[in-house]
Amino acid sequence: MGRDVIPPIHGYAGCHPAPRHLLVYRYLKNNVSALTLTPVQHIPLIRRDDNLADIVVNALQENDISLEDNDILVFAQKIISKAEGRAINLATITPSQRALELAKQTEKDARVVELILRESNEVLRTRVGALIVEHKLGFVCANAGIDHSNVSPSETSEVFGDFGSLSAEDWVLLLPAEPDRSAEKMRDEIKSKTGKRVGVLIIDSHGRAWRNGTVGVAIGIAGLPALEDLRGKPDLFGYKLQVTQVGVADELAAAASLMMGQAAEGTPVVHVRGFPYPMREATLKELIRPKEQDLFR
Amino acid sequence: MGRDVIPPIHGYAGCHPAPRHLLVYRYLKNNVSALTLTPVQHIPLIRRDDNLADIVVNALQENDISLEDNDILVFAQKIISKAEGRAINLATITPSQRALELAKQTEKDARVVELILRESNEVLRTRVGALIVEHKLGFVCANAGIDHSNVSPSETSEVFGDFGSLSAEDWVLLLPAEPDRSAEKMRDEIKSKTGKRVGVLIIDSHGRAWRNGTVGVAIGIAGLPALEDLRGKPDLFGYKLQVTQVGVADELAAAASLMMGQAAEGTPVVHVRGFPYPMREATLKELIRPKEQDLFR
Repeated sequence: MGRDVIPPIHGYAGCHPAPRHLLVYRYLKNNVSALTLTPVQHIPLIRRDDNLADIVVNALQENDISLEDNDILVFAQKIISKAEGRAINLATITPSQRALELAKQTEKDARVVELILRESNEVLRTRVGALIVEHKLGFVCANAGIDHSNVSPSETSEVFGDFGSLSAEDWVLLLPAEPDRSAEKMRDEIKSKTGKRVGVLIIDSHGRAWRNGTVGVAIGIAGLPALEDLRGKPDLFGYKLQVTQVGVADELAAAASLMMGQAAEGTPVVHVRGFPYPMREATLKELIRPKEQDLFR
Repeated sequence: MGRDVIPPIHGYAGCHPAPRHLLVYRYLKNNVSALTLTPVQHIPLIRRDDNLADIVVNALQENDISLEDNDILVFAQKIISKAEGRAINLATITPSQRALELAKQTEKDARVVELILRESNEVLRTRVGALIVEHKLGFVCANAGIDHSNVSPSETSEVFGDFGSLSAEDWVLLLPAEPDRSAEKMRDEIKSKTGKRVGVLIIDSHGRAWRNGTVGVAIGIAGLPALEDLRGKPDLFGYKLQVTQVGVADELAAAASLMMGQAAEGTPVVHVRGFPYPMREATLKELIRPKEQDLFR
């Protein structure tokens, strides 16, 4: 909460009940079309320094998807991280005293815990298998988003040379260093390759307080709104709504996550058409609740 | 966490890296089609005892949407609540001592606080404007999901008779009493009217710990999975994943919420085609993290 910069975007702005003809007008304005999310097939395994924009533009062609202005491309963070060379070989990591203690508490690999600490501002909670942290990027998540899965021996040996007997279990993948920047760069490259002005969203899967199951959330954003601030926008009868900040980028992240699946990496990019809000510049920061306004820290 | 009842549904089940031809097989299995979410236009204002199933089936026809088996219909809780007569006139509510105290703390209407307490198991946190509670239905949310907006004088006077000078600000809407049951009933009625076996999801917008903005979440489910438990399903290279419970019903709820908007009530129903998981029976309970496993209570 605490933002007040985005003016109401459309609709009747009075505080009294809207006259009948304006209600009808609101109905007409709601005549939005469908939202379509299409998994982009045939993305190859991504390695460090691959040109992801080229790969995606080619894959879109193979999928017979012709980009239009205001389309959105949603990327799983994993392929952005791989292209940016964020795979780390655990043999290169020496755990600190604090990492050793937390590793004992959580029954985790101390080298992974060390990386979690390096990637985080603060540890909020621990349990067996997980440290819940505030990531340096600002959001709260388990294990700083560090991922053991889908890092293949062949990919990593390309990156770091041949470690011989090392198995892929010795490699982990950090989140992209600056996901907003990665999204922006991708958006600009796609613009220059296709002429189309699209939005780009980078997402990860996060667990949640109170509810079981992970859901997709935004960790990097370019060219689409993160929050829609509808506070003060009147409802159908013209009464002021009290709280109507909507996490639209997270809602879209969840939708795209549904179409990516979780385990296999066959569909790490989803094409979106029909996003119902006006496009604008935004950053992840909009979605991070300031610590002092958070009742659950 | 802590569930272990749903077996892995598909894919290579070994613990060692999958042979090359199985990786290819996984690619082919990922050949899912698009997810399409279409707001159903022209749903009239809903009043108590309206037959919502009839109204929706008619609206689908008007929208040229022909239902198919395995389609999903997502309903905003508000219209379910209205049809079920969950509008309450605040003039009929006498606040308890505890409600008066909490109302002072939170600067809220004591009668609304009284209703929040009646609808809840426990108050977790308070701040000005909000009580964060465990709702009787099991989930954690602000103000027990009680809603001031979009309850019109004309609708409520139909329900409770004419209160003369009372404004709509004196009316609030509680959540449906048993949303899983409401979803099941809707699913069955649609089956009997159309012959099609669809999934039904009832959603609300919830705030979140740590992140700004509300997102759509499931509060009632019939005929589609709530969680997909992919723990132990191997990744692309055959390594065991550690945590892969995905809140697929919540991901779909977020997607549908994006297409409903927040303020106007013109599109409280969204039609979904292409949900990528097998349909099955489920209830909201799958999505509720047991209190003793919740680090943020």
